[in-house]
Parts: sequence; C-alpha cells; structure tokens
Amino acid sequence: MVAARENIGVGLMGLGVIGSGVVSVLTGKSDKLALESNRPLILKKILEKDVSKHGSMGLSKGIFTADFEEFLNNPEIEIVIELIGGESPAFDFIKRCIKAGKHVVTANKEVIAKHGYEILQLARDNHVDVRYEASVGGGIPVISPFIDALMVNDIKAILGIVNGTTNYILTSMAQEGLDFDIALEQAQKLGYAEANPENDIGGADAAYKLAILATLAFSTEVKIEDVYYEGISKLEANDFRYSKELGYAIKLLAIAKQTDGFIEVRVHPVFISEDALLAKVDGVFNAIEIEGDLVGKLIFYGRGAGAAPTSSAVMADVVNIASNICHEIKSIPKLPSGETYKIKRMPEVKTRGYIRMRILDQSGVLAQISKVLGDNDISIASVIQKETDLSSNTAEIVIMTHPSKEDAIQKALTDMRRLAAVKEINNYIRVED
Amino acid sequence: MVAARENIGVGLMGLGVIGSGVVSVLTGKSDKLALESNRPLILKKILEKDVSKHGSMGLSKGIFTADFEEFLNNPEIEIVIELIGGESPAFDFIKRCIKAGKHVVTANKEVIAKHGYEILQLARDNHVDVRYEASVGGGIPVISPFIDALMVNDIKAILGIVNGTTNYILTSMAQEGLDFDIALEQAQKLGYAEANPENDIGGADAAYKLAILATLAFSTEVKIEDVYYEGISKLEANDFRYSKELGYAIKLLAIAKQTDGFIEVRVHPVFISEDALLAKVDGVFNAIEIEGDLVGKLIFYGRGAGAAPTSSAVMADVVNIASNICHEIKSIPKLPSGETYKIKRMPEVKTRGYIRMRILDQSGVLAQISKVLGDNDISIASVIQKETDLSSNTAEIVIMTHPSKEDAIQKALTDMRRLAAVKEINNYIRVED
Repeated sequence: MVAARENIGVGLMGLGVIGSGVVSVLTGKSDKLALESNRPLILKKILEKDVSKHGSMGLSKGIFTADFEEFLNNPEIEIVIELIGGESPAFDFIKRCIKAGKHVVTANKEVIAKHGYEILQLARDNHVDVRYEASVGGGIPVISPFIDALMVNDIKAILGIVNGTTNYILTSMAQEGLDFDIALEQAQKLGYAEANPENDIGGADAAYKLAILATLAFSTEVKIEDVYYEGISKLEANDFRYSKELGYAIKLLAIAKQTDGFIEVRVHPVFISEDALLAKVDGVFNAIEIEGDLVGKLIFYGRGAGAAPTSSAVMADVVNIASNICHEIKSIPKLPSGETYKIKRMPEVKTRGYIRMRILDQSGVLAQISKVLGDNDISIASVIQKETDLSSNTAEIVIMTHPSKEDAIQKALTDMRRLAAVKEINNYIRVED
Repeated sequence: MVAARENIGVGLMGLGVIGSGVVSVLTGKSDKLALESNRPLILKKILEKDVSKHGSMGLSKGIFTADFEEFLNNPEIEIVIELIGGESPAFDFIKRCIKAGKHVVTANKEVIAKHGYEILQLARDNHVDVRYEASVGGGIPVISPFIDALMVNDIKAILGIVNGTTNYILTSMAQEGLDFDIALEQAQKLGYAEANPENDIGGADAAYKLAILATLAFSTEVKIEDVYYEGISKLEANDFRYSKELGYAIKLLAIAKQTDGFIEVRVHPVFISEDALLAKVDGVFNAIEIEGDLVGKLIFYGRGAGAAPTSSAVMADVVNIASNICHEIKSIPKLPSGETYKIKRMPEVKTRGYIRMRILDQSGVLAQISKVLGDNDISIASVIQKETDLSSNTAEIVIMTHPSKEDAIQKALTDMRRLAAVKEINNYIRVED
C-alpha cells in the first residue's frame, strides 16, 4: 500500500442487484464520498462473470474482469467490496484478499455466520479491516451499535424481525386471511420472495443473521449449528384467526437471550403480544429489539433489504475504512472475546406455547389430553374449543400452556398424537413475552 | 498528557441523577470498561458543590471538590464528563477543560444546541475530542449514525419524539381522556415531569435536541433561534376525541425537513396518522425517524432519559475516547460543513391543518368562514360539526385544510376571530403526513 496515494482504490466483486446499487453510489455520490473519506474513492475493477453487464451501468469495458487472479493482483485496489453472496467462492476470495493485504467490506451473511471468526482473526493477523454492517438488517445499523454505542451494556436479549420476505408473507396472511401458499405466490409475483424461497421461508437466512448478531452481543462465538431454526410454511389461516382472538400477532422472530448464564439462540414463528411494537412491524420491514442492562429496550427499524438501503451500509463501511487509511489509523476488526456464555440447547429452552389440534368431539377427550400434558409437567393456561365439524364429529381446540421445557412439549405432542381421540395436531407455536 | 500512563483518568462535573448513574457504571463495570478501553478508567475527581453526596455512593471524601480550578488543574484527568446541565457555568467549564487539553463528554443539550459549533471548533483547535451522544435520545444512538452509518445518505427528513415528559402526558390524555392540567399533575406525581415543567411542556427541550440533530443531518449550523417551537399546554381532551375520529394520534414532534433546497426546523403538536409507527410510541419512550435517500425510513426507539440509559451513552463516548488515547489515535470531532442549506422560516412552511372552533349555530356562518379561508388561499378538505350547545346557541366545528402556508393560516385565524359569529378558536394543530 502506498500511503501518499492521491485516491483510494476500490474493487467490487459481484455486480448483481446490490452491486449495481453500490456502483451507482460510487459514481453518483463521488463528491460526498471524497469529502467523507478525505480522498476520492475510485472504482478500479469489477470481478463479474457476466461482462456484458457493463453496458447498463455506463462503465468502461476495461474495468471488468472475470478473472479473480487479475482482480487480486491489482495493486491499486485497497478496499474490496464482496457482493457475490453465498459461501463459495466468496469465502475463498475474501480470505485471499485479506492475505493480500486488502481491506474487505461484505454483505455476505452466510460467509460471516459460518466463518466470521476465522475471517476476523485472519484480518487481525494481516493488519487489515473487515466490516459487515450490511450482512444484517440492510441499511439499518445493527452491527455497529454492539461495537460502539452499546459496548458498556450487558446484553440481555435480542428479538429480531430480520427477514423481509417472511414478514411480508406473514403480514399478508394476517391482514388478508390468506393461506401460506397463496401469500407466498403473491410475494413471488411482487419480487419480495425468490423463485426458490426455501432459504427465507425455511428460516436459514434469519438464522445466519442471528448467529452474527448473537456472536457480537454476547461476546461468544455462536456457530450456525448452535442456532435452532424453523420456518413459516406450517402456519395456516386458522392460526392467525386464533392469534387475533387471543391478542397476539404471529411473527418469525430471531431470538437470542441470556438466561441463567446460558444463551438461547433460536428462530421460529412466535405469538407476540399485539401491543408490542415488533407486532406492528409489517410488510418487508425489519426491526431488531435489543435489551441491555443499562439502556433497556431499544428498537431499530427500517428496510432490511434492497439495493439502495444495503448500499448505504456497504458504503458507510467503505468510507470508514478509507477515512482510516487517509488518517493512517490502523483499524483491525474487533474479535468477540470467545466463550462468555454456553449455548442452551433447544430441548432445555422454556417457553409458553399454543397448540392447535383436531379431536373427536366426545366426552373425556380433554381429560385424556390434560393427563398427557400433566404427565409431562406441562400446565394448561387456557383452552378454546370452537368449531365442531358435524360430518366428521371432530372439534378444533386450542390449548395455551404455561412456560414449559421444549423437550417436555415435544414428548407431550408425540404422546398426544398416539391418542385415538386426537385426529391431528395442526400446529405448535411458541409464545414470546 | 503522558502517553504511557497505565490508566486513563476521568473527571466528573455534576453528581445529580445522571452523574450518580455514571459513577455506578465506572465503579460497577470497571473490568468491562478496562477491556473495551484497553486500560482501566479511574475516576479521579468529582466537581460537586454538595460534598455531602459522597456518602451515598461509597466514594472517598477526597475525590470531591467544589473548586473548579482544582478540578481543572488536576493533570491526571484526561477525559471530563460534564453533567452539570444548563448553560452556565457548564459552557464556560467545558471551554476551559478543552483549552486545558482535556477531552470532553457531555449530555448537555442546551450547551450543545446553543454553542456546539464553537465548542467543536475549539476542540479541533486544541486537538481534543468532544462527544455528546447522550444530549439527544438518552441511550438511543442518534448522534453517531449521522456521523457513521448514514454518512453516505442525503438526509430528507427527521421526525422525532424526543421529549419523554410530553409524550407521557399526551399518552395519558389520549388513553384516559384527561385534560392537560390533570395529566401534567399525574406526570409530576410519578416523577416524569419536573416541579417546574416549562422547559419540557413548552417545547424548548425538544427544540434544543432538534437543533443538534438537524445541524448534523443537514451539515448546516442550525441555531436554536432557527427552530420554531410551541408546546402542548393548549391541547384539550376534545382535540384527542376528534383526532381519534379522524384516524390520527397527537404527538409533539421535532421535525426537520429538506424541501426545495431549504430546511424547515420546527417543534409543535401534530396530527399524525394512527397507522404510523411513531403514533404507537407511548409513555416516556422516545423515537426518532430518519429518512435518507438511500436508506429510506429508519426508526430508532428507546428510553430517552433516565440515569441508566443516559449513562450507557455517556460511557460509550468515554470508552471511545479512552480507546483512541490508548491506540494513540488523534480523534477530533467532525464539524458540520456549515451552510449547506438555508433555513425556511416558519411563515413559509406549508402543512395541512386542523382548526377547532366554536361558532354561533345559525345559517350562513360556515359560508363566512369558508370565505375567509378562501380569501387567504386555504382550501377546506373536510368539516365536522357535532356538538350544539343549546343554552348558548353555539356549535363546535372542526375544519381540516389542504396544505397551506403558515402565514396564510395565521392571517386566516386572525380574520376569523374578528367574525361576530365566531365565538372562539380553540386550537390549530398542524397535520404531518
């Protein structure tokens, strides 16, 4: 690196939707970037297989390369923006850029969730910075507060709506009474869900983001394998009807909580009080609630995806690094101190719950169910019985439980399924207070 | 300053509620602070008139002084925390600390709103840092995002609920149907309003905070004289009844907006759609909505006051400075670049409005009122007429206007007051979209 360089060279890997947004900012806001960085930021190279993309952005052909080695060996690139996404080859490229002494800014939640610790350590060893604000919450600043504003707090809990696709679908189901498949189809038509939506609706995307946040919040390396997750595809219109009747909204929450010296880290649909602000976060918006011992509950709300919001976060990271280069400040990433807490495994987690099931409409059935729950140390808070289907002689009931351990609930659900009078257990949804 | 010092000396000016909170953090979290700062933070001196306070905090008597000169001349103090509050003597003390080469962290919104520019310039001249995250929004990080996370954005607007006292009172009025005086009395009993509440309920506190935020957001020195403000004491139970009927909440908003190359900066009660998230921010909580060209709308929500949340922000600033000292990073405060925008004066501001008035219940009165509004270029969106008081033969009407200039509205209100058929104009409240 030449210290007295007149400008800061930037390289971009991946010219998809977000990459194009970043190029727009680099070209359209060059004066502002130069002012904030103290020197002009110049886009030197774009690594992109599809070289035909240069036309639409008004970029010269020479700036493109499909060859990573050429990109890597360009000595003018001091800061690399990685927007390829996915684990491979992004992870490998990031490591090689770091080893070549280049700073890295990435929006890649999968790579950071799976390999963040290794990457940050490698960056420290190579005296370069790695920033990843855009990997969670799009343009909402949710990574930096843990490093800066909240550093004095002991974090008690994180509750996040961190996936816009699922929140859009859940909002449609709640507001329009749609079933899951229809709501998903609508979201796909509007571009809010991908053609293959599994990563979003199955909860994996939220799990990556939660692993990143929990690692920072609790100074504990939370691996993706540590995060329990389930998605939203089992939810039905009836669940929303009951939730409303009971005063709840249904949201897919990413939850990390400190309880008795352990942390629980889980993503699943929850019943959340309709009075909670998180219950009012609708559509594609994200919101992250953070509870600290000093600060109490904070909520950060905004657009968690999209080219412009994500570019805002990416470019703030780039400018911060550029500004440090100009001021000759050697900044290396903070490494969470390691194993502050042990992970509480899912079977040990305690929550209240909602069970919806279809039973034979005859006397004594509720007594059998109560016995199974009681035998598993689960106590009932309330029971609703509404619809009776005369043709099949079955009734749908909803049971709300007091706080119970997950393994007990799973055992009870299995036991209940074995009862002849239980026709179907439609859903089990945890309640978050 | 001795660079190789083994610890960082901290001095505290003012041991009130917040000061005591800061002392609790300094003593109770010393390990965490040392870890984050890279060296232990040691409280060297407390400047406090009331020396008897030392007993309750378990502090040695020797740490206290009532003599500013003694405090100032203590060479061990590298970072000064100013929590005296108010303009004098805090402003003078801050300047003298800066000139003595000490870094300053303050929660003093009045001093920063009135003299921030001078203080930041003085700090730059003296190569020290000045931080003031706690001056707005208590523990909610709202200053730092403008400097870091949002730096690439052109800010379009800020809408903030930045005063917990008034939000608590407005929430009581809305939820319990109370009149202002009763709601204020309740808030005072609960400690949410001061014995002399003028600074809060009159809007000055919110105006200070808005001047600080707008200066940063728009890179324009917004002076406190530039901020139009009015308080909440004229609101009546009837205004809340009508607002609900029309689908609005009433909030005291601090508003800074970029319109046609100008910025408008104002604090007043507003009608805001009941569906807006800001409308759902209740009680003593604060929330600041920031709209950027890239990031869209962000909202930051949390506790805007109180010893623990404010200490969280103060101590994060202290740790940031301490960490820079340890890493020999010379950080000086950023100075907003100056006059990016001109201020739009209040008479030029355009808003929709709500007018509640009592008129004689006879034919032709509405025609007279419509004429006055029309003559002033104000067009009516809707009219509600409800209660007729048979004894006085008067009726209460509510007029909602289309967007109109403030000077036209004020002229129309004056003209209407002169009409014999208009008994009283009870309130005029602006509508915020």
